[in-house]
Amino acid sequence: MNKAKIVTCQAPVNIAVIKYWGKRNDELILPINDSISASLCLDHMCAKTTIIASPDFKETKFWLNGELQPTDNRRLQNCLKEMKKRANSNLECLKWHLNICSENNFPTAAGLASSAAGYACLVYALSQIYEIKTNISSIARIGSGSACRSVFGGWVRWYKGETYEGSDSVAEQVAPETHWPEMRVLILVVDDQKKTYSSTSGMKTSVETSEFLQYRAAKIVPQRIEDMVDAIKNKNFQKFAQLTMQDSNQFHSVCLDTYPPCFYLNDTSRTIIELVHHYNQFKGEIKVAYTFDAGPNACLYLLEENVSEVVEMINYVFPPKPTIMSNYFKGIDISITTPDEKLISSVSNFQQTEGKLKYIIYTKVGRGPRVLEKSEEHLLTESGMPKH
Amino acid sequence: MNKAKIVTCQAPVNIAVIKYWGKRNDELILPINDSISASLCLDHMCAKTTIIASPDFKETKFWLNGELQPTDNRRLQNCLKEMKKRANSNLECLKWHLNICSENNFPTAAGLASSAAGYACLVYALSQIYEIKTNISSIARIGSGSACRSVFGGWVRWYKGETYEGSDSVAEQVAPETHWPEMRVLILVVDDQKKTYSSTSGMKTSVETSEFLQYRAAKIVPQRIEDMVDAIKNKNFQKFAQLTMQDSNQFHSVCLDTYPPCFYLNDTSRTIIELVHHYNQFKGEIKVAYTFDAGPNACLYLLEENVSEVVEMINYVFPPKPTIMSNYFKGIDISITTPDEKLISSVSNFQQTEGKLKYIIYTKVGRGPRVLEKSEEHLLTESGMPKH
Repeated sequence: MNKAKIVTCQAPVNIAVIKYWGKRNDELILPINDSISASLCLDHMCAKTTIIASPDFKETKFWLNGELQPTDNRRLQNCLKEMKKRANSNLECLKWHLNICSENNFPTAAGLASSAAGYACLVYALSQIYEIKTNISSIARIGSGSACRSVFGGWVRWYKGETYEGSDSVAEQVAPETHWPEMRVLILVVDDQKKTYSSTSGMKTSVETSEFLQYRAAKIVPQRIEDMVDAIKNKNFQKFAQLTMQDSNQFHSVCLDTYPPCFYLNDTSRTIIELVHHYNQFKGEIKVAYTFDAGPNACLYLLEENVSEVVEMINYVFPPKPTIMSNYFKGIDISITTPDEKLISSVSNFQQTEGKLKYIIYTKVGRGPRVLEKSEEHLLTESGMPKH
Repeated sequence: MNKAKIVTCQAPVNIAVIKYWGKRNDELILPINDSISASLCLDHMCAKTTIIASPDFKETKFWLNGELQPTDNRRLQNCLKEMKKRANSNLECLKWHLNICSENNFPTAAGLASSAAGYACLVYALSQIYEIKTNISSIARIGSGSACRSVFGGWVRWYKGETYEGSDSVAEQVAPETHWPEMRVLILVVDDQKKTYSSTSGMKTSVETSEFLQYRAAKIVPQRIEDMVDAIKNKNFQKFAQLTMQDSNQFHSVCLDTYPPCFYLNDTSRTIIELVHHYNQFKGEIKVAYTFDAGPNACLYLLEENVSEVVEMINYVFPPKPTIMSNYFKGIDISITTPDEKLISSVSNFQQTEGKLKYIIYTKVGRGPRVLEKSEEHLLTESGMPKH
């Protein structure tokens, strides 16, 4: 009797600094422009997936965050099919059913790109089962576009590609996570009652209705991508930060030029943006960059030396509710010292009522997916949801 | 002894449906694209200006909303100089000093384009003193760009013009106020603590930093202007309303693409936008259009038959503070009937806390500037601030 193959993997969340918005092919998830992101440290936010392939399984099952899912999901099926195609066709386990269990170790309420990390992790775990060594990013891409960037660590570029069938729409590493070790990330999770618009449908409506979107993709992004690659390679924070902010704003600008418009930023997001510009002006040069995905939460890129001052300022402007203080700071420990009085008094008119932020995650740029455990063993019982 | 010349005039506020944003010449206030607006009824919102020209005055004085202003204001001086140039040079009163008193009959807190109405009124009143019969819109323009549109009633187009010195950057009427008698306007004045960004400096930063702005002016607005003129001439509300909303959104999209970005819309504005789209979808066709200038206040264009239902819905979603009810509705009387229960229950998740709106002005498209009083008389005393 054949042994079952078991693997547990993690894959990172990624936050784009040049944004992906708009598909040229909805089925294959081919984008209209290149994008660039950083993958975030697995210790603080990641997707985790366990796959068991066993000759004894009667069907393939898929659990997401503890809930059994239907497996006729087209994107899931496409990923499975494409991974099997890549494998050596003699591989015994290609015929076996799978039990897949996927989880995020960060609250989905954060509105952070959980499907990107999730599909990257799924495809990476499948690559372990099916012994695939090639660039799997284009397969992660058909699961969830930006998932292709979570297949690598550090700074990652997703090439839009030129071919019709999308074989060249792949991600590649611009620089590893060790390249810019001072870089840090603060995620400000905004307390927002509103449901966000689905990014898939918002993106589709933008492609159909925003004249700015096509202009952006054709005329603006190509140069920005080159400039961003340069800024990252040369660790030019000023240039990196300005481009990051401009591209975030331009993405939200396109959302507003969409008909009907999609709003992802709210008044708290707006205050964060104004506060960052104020802080940079106060310091005399750009020390912090904000970027926002399809939701109100801010992601701040900054160097380690500025983290404690920036967090003090944020704490002053956005006082947390006293009741939630115990679990307010997540991720890397932050040492908060006495705030600079001049800075604090300069931001007094930004001050908000308590509780506009839910919590803050302090993290950094990190590695790509990794295997946590891998084994082959005889399963003693019929499978339930695999435990990691 | 010569008699003094006295005139009192009114000029309308105008609300653009194709927006002006961006100058190609800051000094002459020459725009980068054509724009179209409606002038609003003088009864509900207007600027009022009295000018006395007297051979006895020792100096020119200018009062704005009751406060004496410095007269070395460049824009004011430019308007005076250009109006004198247009006059018959034999006119005796060209040598006399002026006392000018200007007021708005609507709260400046409304954040509505008071300078447009103000400069239009000033220039119109001067045209009465100096007996000028030509199109004075280009002179109002050098006072405050969009003032040139307030020189006419009804539907007005401001041509960007082609010449270097701006002689052809003038406004002309597309249709008089009688053309579309069912058209109504609701102004929702949003209670907002934030100071708005100056539109002059925001516009300048947009020209310098937004790549979308130039594209909009060159490639998008020309067609929109033609479509809007058509929609107005044919009283095609569907087309008119969609273009109005798209152009408002695109203007704010450009503001967001500006670096640093300017935000004029807040969460209340955003709720109004979403509510209007919801209402139009509920009704199965476009019944209301929103448009926003450089501030959070909404201006809704709609036909008279829909006013009462729309106001009921707004009242439900934005309950006024009970304390301010006595002066909450301004302008034309609104008869509120029993709300449609199905509609109201469909908007329950839009409902806001009390007091997000300050007040509502109900008005319509109206005539251009008019003379209220005109006389020539001997002044008995040295002048103080002229009373209207």
